[in-house]
Amino acid sequence: MNSLTMFNFSLLQTLVEVLATLTFALSGMLEAARKRLDVVGVCVVAGLTAFGGGTLRDILLDRRPFFWVQHAAWLWALLALCTVVMLTLRSHHFELTERAVLWPDALGLGLFSASGTQIALEMQMPAIVAVLMGVISAVFGGVLRDIVCNEIPSVFRGHRPYAVCAFIGSWIVVLGQVFHAPDWLALVAAAATTVLLRGLALWSGYRLPSWDTDPSSAD
Amino acid sequence: MNSLTMFNFSLLQTLVEVLATLTFALSGMLEAARKRLDVVGVCVVAGLTAFGGGTLRDILLDRRPFFWVQHAAWLWALLALCTVVMLTLRSHHFELTERAVLWPDALGLGLFSASGTQIALEMQMPAIVAVLMGVISAVFGGVLRDIVCNEIPSVFRGHRPYAVCAFIGSWIVVLGQVFHAPDWLALVAAAATTVLLRGLALWSGYRLPSWDTDPSSAD
Amino acid sequence: MNSLTMFNFSLLQTLVEVLATLTFALSGMLEAARKRLDVVGVCVVAGLTAFGGGTLRDILLDRRPFFWVQHAAWLWALLALCTVVMLTLRSHHFELTERAVLWPDALGLGLFSASGTQIALEMQMPAIVAVLMGVISAVFGGVLRDIVCNEIPSVFRGHRPYAVCAFIGSWIVVLGQVFHAPDWLALVAAAATTVLLRGLALWSGYRLPSWDTDPSSAD
Repeated sequence: MNSLTMFNFSLLQTLVEVLATLTFALSGMLEAARKRLDVVGVCVVAGLTAFGGGTLRDILLDRRPFFWVQHAAWLWALLALCTVVMLTLRSHHFELTERAVLWPDALGLGLFSASGTQIALEMQMPAIVAVLMGVISAVFGGVLRDIVCNEIPSVFRGHRPYAVCAFIGSWIVVLGQVFHAPDWLALVAAAATTVLLRGLALWSGYRLPSWDTDPSSAD
Repeated sequence: MNSLTMFNFSLLQTLVEVLATLTFALSGMLEAARKRLDVVGVCVVAGLTAFGGGTLRDILLDRRPFFWVQHAAWLWALLALCTVVMLTLRSHHFELTERAVLWPDALGLGLFSASGTQIALEMQMPAIVAVLMGVISAVFGGVLRDIVCNEIPSVFRGHRPYAVCAFIGSWIVVLGQVFHAPDWLALVAAAATTVLLRGLALWSGYRLPSWDTDPSSAD
Repeated sequence: MNSLTMFNFSLLQTLVEVLATLTFALSGMLEAARKRLDVVGVCVVAGLTAFGGGTLRDILLDRRPFFWVQHAAWLWALLALCTVVMLTLRSHHFELTERAVLWPDALGLGLFSASGTQIALEMQMPAIVAVLMGVISAVFGGVLRDIVCNEIPSVFRGHRPYAVCAFIGSWIVVLGQVFHAPDWLALVAAAATTVLLRGLALWSGYRLPSWDTDPSSAD
């Protein structure tokens, strides 16, 4: 790519990141509202959902500074978002909001898992570990949200393909490295694959196979 | 300050730290008792409540050694405290104990948030990150206690100003750095502000504003 | 020991490690099945139970690479195990499985706590910290399993000696260092002590003393 295209690509990536991070934060706020948390709880759960996955990945990779330390303005943006949402959103908007964020959430799933995998590969992690780090980046914010809200993480019991889409898509980044594809191409291809798989899963209503532990009962 | 005053100040700080850490441990033990944990659970939850916040801050800041590694005698003190408390405290003492520890707990909230903020500023963290680290030091011991005891953290749903007091007080440390105030002065002023705010909150019974998600119902 | 004996000892240690890790993973899978998690949840909880304790120890000690990064083949083995178990194990096998794994589980408790203590001592940790790291290595996989599955960790409320056995056994490693015993001897003696204590606890049905908070009621 020439430098102008590269600039536009960077800009696009940043835009998708902003959109996806805000979406993750919003999903934390909705869960916090359902559990009737106070304003402190709403802000903390929003931040944990937005930044928890990437932070856990960086702790595991021993990588500093964290995203929200290097770009501390994000913390102010998060506080601003929480304030605006708490002043405007009411419970009868929740269902509509949840449907509206399905697509930005899928974009975040694709982008964060692909970039997390890339970061881990750059740190010489084995392929399977890098893919795992990608999946952790994308889904563990939601896992921490559910643990703090005293629920079994929905990504572990929803029977809907979510982490699985990110797992498959992240292998495209590994393939890209094997075939010496440029980083941006691997990132886009992996993220697109994840988003496509997630879209297919949402559209088809496909359910993950259950562990049929009790064949006599129709579960 | 001359060296004698400094010595007395250090001594005072250490005394407050000891008092506050024991208070935090005690709050972990009471919660563990309510959940009918065994002796292992009581000791672990006590330790997690006392040292969990500072340890999480140090993991996030990539700072070693932890307080309880450098001063391993604290772990023995914790075991001794747990033994004494389990041999003497009965459930009809619990209510009195909880009221008696409100003030040492407020002291701990003030001191740990101020010193946590100072530590983060010394490591060149941005102001908002440093304040966040201060709040994490002071309140995440209790958060981990509640997560292990399978409760939504009380600091996220109590609607009482607790983390908010530490958040406001910690900014005094940042102000102190901006105006080149001596470290001990910033620490004392910040801790005193937090303790005062917490005292006001307890005295007035002030409730944090709720996110009024359902305006039609009187919640 | 001559090099041949040493080789056999290493081989034996590796075999016990493999057996114990698979046992830990299996206990995660059974818990996940009881909570009706999907395939993603089953695999994650299995991995968390198997590797969570050692990973937490390494994060606390700031030690890299993790076991499952250095030996990434384990992650494939875990996926294979999960697949085989999900295809073959049914709920009427669960009770038998749980009794069958009590002994490999006790071996894992002994081996992981002893080797965790040894690792911490090599990093110049104080004795009580090293013992704590040993116990964390052996039991915090199960703690994380129970937190994710939204239960109070069974090791904190079971009133059965489990962590306590590892705590006592791990001190043998410290004693071994004091008396300059060879590493392998300290490891074997400590692990054997833990396994023996755990076996005694299982055989006798001994219950840990409760914190008798309410002496008037028969609890």
